[in-house]
Amino acid sequence: MERILVDMDEVIADTTLAMINWYKEKFGGDIDYEKMLAGHSLVKGFPDEHQTIVRQQLFEPGFFRNLPVIENSKEVLEEMNKKYEIFIVSAAVEFPNSLIEKYHWLMEHFPFFTWQQMVFCGDKRLMYGDYMIDDHARHLQHFKGKPYLFNAPHNLDEKNYDRLESWKHAADVFLK
Amino acid sequence: MERILVDMDEVIADTTLAMINWYKEKFGGDIDYEKMLAGHSLVKGFPDEHQTIVRQQLFEPGFFRNLPVIENSKEVLEEMNKKYEIFIVSAAVEFPNSLIEKYHWLMEHFPFFTWQQMVFCGDKRLMYGDYMIDDHARHLQHFKGKPYLFNAPHNLDEKNYDRLESWKHAADVFLK
Repeated sequence: MERILVDMDEVIADTTLAMINWYKEKFGGDIDYEKMLAGHSLVKGFPDEHQTIVRQQLFEPGFFRNLPVIENSKEVLEEMNKKYEIFIVSAAVEFPNSLIEKYHWLMEHFPFFTWQQMVFCGDKRLMYGDYMIDDHARHLQHFKGKPYLFNAPHNLDEKNYDRLESWKHAADVFLK
Repeated sequence: MERILVDMDEVIADTTLAMINWYKEKFGGDIDYEKMLAGHSLVKGFPDEHQTIVRQQLFEPGFFRNLPVIENSKEVLEEMNKKYEIFIVSAAVEFPNSLIEKYHWLMEHFPFFTWQQMVFCGDKRLMYGDYMIDDHARHLQHFKGKPYLFNAPHNLDEKNYDRLESWKHAADVFLK
């Protein structure tokens, strides 16, 4: 069975949308997608004077527990999980409060995954598999298998990887 | 730089000693090392009628935060960390409350490690490195590099792996 490593934030969990919603409620402003793209980072899309507090939000208890699920990720991964060995690999240790929240979030929204399929790390270079799906080129660049860049607002100008535009696209690639 | 994957429980954190101490205080009895060895599990060393509550203790908040450090592990790993790329790889996701506790425990006792060097997973088969140090043969058996079994009361009859008897022995192997 081929092994696929799947990222969480901005691949199955909509961190960007949650942050925008939080920001709008707190400051009333909106995100600048061009700045986000130029900085290749979610945080860079917010006004300079608020980037520290936006980043701080990633460390707040509750933030990762309440993220929306990315469209179709649940349905497509449930099917992929029957044909592939799937691991959810999240560089979560940077945000220690997120560890238990990501565990419970996965248990709630992706109940077909077991704890054996979850990996919370700081560095993905030591993982191997046949495919990796991630929104960050820095995680894909050392991967020995076939990398796929999952579309996110911060990576739309990245040219070096085959892309998955959506989970419907992923279904075309992995389930046909 | 060669990469070494180092387990936590019973390799750098003395889970066995902590459990024995907790058990003695609660029930007054002692562990049976022969039964532990026969069952290849810490939990099997306790009387049959208490194994459920002993196992439950692994899920209790606080248990993993307060484990003693295995003798010489800190000093030897601090030196090894200068010569090797070290990752601490713990199959911790089975015990979700342990995730944040293991993070803080590492930060307290092994402050020379960064969050990038921590991996909390359920299954170690997807990790690669040059060496793996673990007390469980089940984690070593799929490893592509050189495996070392770290001595623990539950594994003393395991014959299939080169052993590290202690962290002084590890220093002889990795720092000479």
